[in-house]
Amino acid sequence: MDQNRRRELAQLISRIDRLTPADPLPLPEDGKPLGTAFRLGVTGPLGAGKSTLINQVARIYRQRGYSVGIIAVDPTSPFTGGALLGDRVRMSDLALDDGVFIRSLATRGAAGGIATATVDAADLLDAYGFDRIILETVGVGQSEIAIASASDLTCVILEPGAGDSIQALKAGLMEIADLFIVNKKDMRGADRFILDLATVLEMKPDESRPEILATSANRSDGVPEMVDWLESYFRRVSDNGKLVKRRAGQRVERIRHLANEAAVQQLWETLSDQSLLRVVNSKMSAREAARILVDEAFGDGKEGRG
Amino acid sequence: MDQNRRRELAQLISRIDRLTPADPLPLPEDGKPLGTAFRLGVTGPLGAGKSTLINQVARIYRQRGYSVGIIAVDPTSPFTGGALLGDRVRMSDLALDDGVFIRSLATRGAAGGIATATVDAADLLDAYGFDRIILETVGVGQSEIAIASASDLTCVILEPGAGDSIQALKAGLMEIADLFIVNKKDMRGADRFILDLATVLEMKPDESRPEILATSANRSDGVPEMVDWLESYFRRVSDNGKLVKRRAGQRVERIRHLANEAAVQQLWETLSDQSLLRVVNSKMSAREAARILVDEAFGDGKEGRG
Repeated sequence: MDQNRRRELAQLISRIDRLTPADPLPLPEDGKPLGTAFRLGVTGPLGAGKSTLINQVARIYRQRGYSVGIIAVDPTSPFTGGALLGDRVRMSDLALDDGVFIRSLATRGAAGGIATATVDAADLLDAYGFDRIILETVGVGQSEIAIASASDLTCVILEPGAGDSIQALKAGLMEIADLFIVNKKDMRGADRFILDLATVLEMKPDESRPEILATSANRSDGVPEMVDWLESYFRRVSDNGKLVKRRAGQRVERIRHLANEAAVQQLWETLSDQSLLRVVNSKMSAREAARILVDEAFGDGKEGRG
Repeated sequence: MDQNRRRELAQLISRIDRLTPADPLPLPEDGKPLGTAFRLGVTGPLGAGKSTLINQVARIYRQRGYSVGIIAVDPTSPFTGGALLGDRVRMSDLALDDGVFIRSLATRGAAGGIATATVDAADLLDAYGFDRIILETVGVGQSEIAIASASDLTCVILEPGAGDSIQALKAGLMEIADLFIVNKKDMRGADRFILDLATVLEMKPDESRPEILATSANRSDGVPEMVDWLESYFRRVSDNGKLVKRRAGQRVERIRHLANEAAVQQLWETLSDQSLLRVVNSKMSAREAARILVDEAFGDGKEGRG
């Protein structure tokens, strides 16, 4: 990809945050059809070695001739903001490769905003012809749900022995993971950790039980096998129709979500500040006030308004 | 409060979850005007001794002749769900007191749902004449934001030496806390912890810097002083107009939020399943599809529709 194209793509991604739900996503006219790329979501706690692993996965993809786009979804809390940025610097050798595109996506908005922006960014990389798209986030707040809703496969990276890792599974990671990577597999207690994890995962029915793979990313140990597994997964779900089904489900959720956002946007564009002030300063309950505002903007849903 | 009244109140609270934003909150006809009670929000990590402390605070309020309503906001994650329920059992002696009402509020819905339901529950206790309302949650997810948006004062309870406690402040607790309680003040390192906390809080401007109090709830040490502080705070903000201002701000946010929810509800009530299916199955982008659905339901915002 030449420098002009890269700059164009970078500019478009930096503008995603400013799109309202009513705006179309500006895609290149000569772009690839959306859905061409394989989208891999990666999440997991800080310190699990996520970015080293992603680095290695990207290298192996490059060796096999695939171009790779990486989006780091950054929930911009003061607590985690710096971590992803540091990762980006560590990846700087990859960033010199023309077949690699790395970008942080700082999402200052609400939870819904993260999901919307993540899919937009992935769509742009897809249209610009990247073969493999990696969507990365630290496992914080709603960003991991956003990753899952934008990915063909969601991969959760854990470190053995981290006290909360098995606990964390209970808080929602188990619902979104298609694949667990236990990184730092040479650490003491790694085998035990993998056994514990497998036991927890036995709660899930066979057909939706995530696989567990072990890697040691800083020695690239297990990473080629991980990429083999990813590619075989992608082929399998492409062939058996599961990919089409998963993407269709994501599309429905995305349309619902964008329509909700557009409805809220239109509500406040239609209402004047005076309308809000009037009900706020009245004696009516908040619920009555809300109802009156929506009726004023959209009618009462039973008959049209001129 | 007699048993019939209690049962009526309990039934109303249990129905809060089923209210849509368009429904009015069913308040008793002979109820107190909303805003009579002082609403105290309490949050903090598991294990900080929150419920022992709340127990003691409620006892002292009873000794001073106030009736007390306690709502435990339970985010119903499998990880935390059991903890609050266990707390309720520990409080069972208080529950025998006619001047105390304790209820868990399980909120299965979205983040917005928690905030809406918490205010509704507090409004009910207020209307039923409880003088002091305590809204409690474990500091998880969006529930602590919900507590803050429903409280006249938000109190964060910490335990000295808990590794993440000072860290956790960075992740949003500092924004919502009006008061920090360092409980278990006899633990080793408590003084140091209080100093560290005070240092972190120095980042905040004088006028909005939270107070720090130390307690040892299981020996009731420092708890009468805490209640004195709460009452003096309540008197101060009542007199200087800050309470009216805070509640007015909360009312605006609540109306906005309920209006957003009502707009979304009306969107999907207006649209047929066929409309959704048609755009989902089309070639159009998700953003276009959402726009078309909102236009179909509400018009395009520029001209009315019959």
